[in-house]
Amino acid sequence: MVNSDLLKENEKIDSLQRNGYSIIQDSTRFCFGMDAVLLTEFAKDRIRNSDEVLDLCTGTGIIPILLRAKTKAKHFTAMEIQEEVADMARRSVAMNNLNEDIEILTADLCEMSKSYYNTFDVVTVNPPYMIPGKALVNPNSSKAIARHEIKCTLEDVIRQSSKALKSSGRFFMVHKPERLTEIITLMKEKKIEPKRLRMVYPRIVDEPSMILIEGIKCGNQGIRIEKPLIIYDENGQYMKEVSDIYEEA
Amino acid sequence: MVNSDLLKENEKIDSLQRNGYSIIQDSTRFCFGMDAVLLTEFAKDRIRNSDEVLDLCTGTGIIPILLRAKTKAKHFTAMEIQEEVADMARRSVAMNNLNEDIEILTADLCEMSKSYYNTFDVVTVNPPYMIPGKALVNPNSSKAIARHEIKCTLEDVIRQSSKALKSSGRFFMVHKPERLTEIITLMKEKKIEPKRLRMVYPRIVDEPSMILIEGIKCGNQGIRIEKPLIIYDENGQYMKEVSDIYEEA
Repeated sequence: MVNSDLLKENEKIDSLQRNGYSIIQDSTRFCFGMDAVLLTEFAKDRIRNSDEVLDLCTGTGIIPILLRAKTKAKHFTAMEIQEEVADMARRSVAMNNLNEDIEILTADLCEMSKSYYNTFDVVTVNPPYMIPGKALVNPNSSKAIARHEIKCTLEDVIRQSSKALKSSGRFFMVHKPERLTEIITLMKEKKIEPKRLRMVYPRIVDEPSMILIEGIKCGNQGIRIEKPLIIYDENGQYMKEVSDIYEEA
Repeated sequence: MVNSDLLKENEKIDSLQRNGYSIIQDSTRFCFGMDAVLLTEFAKDRIRNSDEVLDLCTGTGIIPILLRAKTKAKHFTAMEIQEEVADMARRSVAMNNLNEDIEILTADLCEMSKSYYNTFDVVTVNPPYMIPGKALVNPNSSKAIARHEIKCTLEDVIRQSSKALKSSGRFFMVHKPERLTEIITLMKEKKIEPKRLRMVYPRIVDEPSMILIEGIKCGNQGIRIEKPLIIYDENGQYMKEVSDIYEEA
């Protein structure tokens, strides 16, 4: 039962249409988008029952909450650098009675405790996409920290993911197509071999708006590029694959 | 006018449906495919009037002949390691009255003369795709040399392309999706920055069968991934973009 004491100013509760789960979001901060949803779909069949999962840059906690609904992973640890955002995620976890399944840490991934090294079977991350300096950004705003590489760079994300993963552990990230070269170069450098890549195209006639990538720590070379994920048909309606994702499982 | 003395055993003349050009092919050797055609489409608008173009692994000479029809480049040099294949390409060039535009050299790209270094504005290449040892291959067969990395590896192709290109010169290659990680890593290593990438999907529900990539020697970081190139619609007919390519311009 939702208690209105649960919510702070500007916050609202949105249904996730999965297992009856809901999430608290603050309309003045960064709200989760389709990228987080598609990342959980991309990762879910590769997450095993016994897996220890780490989610970096967790924000509202959307990824561990959705993956709790979609997988039988053993446990989720999620890190968020902004205390107010982590607190909101913690209240969402509690609201869904998931305190035993999901732990939300207020933590800077760059300062990750060594006790987390070589510990996780899976790392998921929907990191800030934008390079600061390319746009006018207030470096103290909560939204800017979620969107821009202010507190962590792409290199930080991939380096720390590699440290956290066990050998043969799986890494899942959603990012922008224009960063593909850096992503592949950094993953190789940090010993996460790119294994699977899917392009997300808004429509069949559009450039991709996102890429989904899986890597395996210390994996063998050889990547598989999957069929295109196309969001909208020519009438502006969701393609079946996407509408299926948004329906209750 | 085609003279039957032009043809050797097993050879035939195929129309290219472009500028009235034709090409000699040998049905017992490697014949050009859609990959070469799509590479010329991918490259043509990025080739300027004054450009010196080098085509590596030219085979039948299909790429310089098609690019002669589709661009106003100044001159094409094309290298082929197999003398019988180079001879066939030379006869195709002569048959189309293109001796002044296209020079076919019998040459091992790994032994490229230093006089070619930093000389070309554009390099195009449709190299052997397959790694030998992954399939049973006769290393002396003409087809095997065209298809498998027997006489040159992906690294050789990218290293020699970089040597041949002027600074800011453009590199265009068609290859297999499963080699994407190596392609990007090697291009970065050899100072050809990946700038443009297009996935070729047989149908909207299929994994890509080819990738088209453009790089710029000593270019700035940042890649653009283009809209998907889809070959067939749900009825097995060419999509409009592809049928347009195969119609006389």
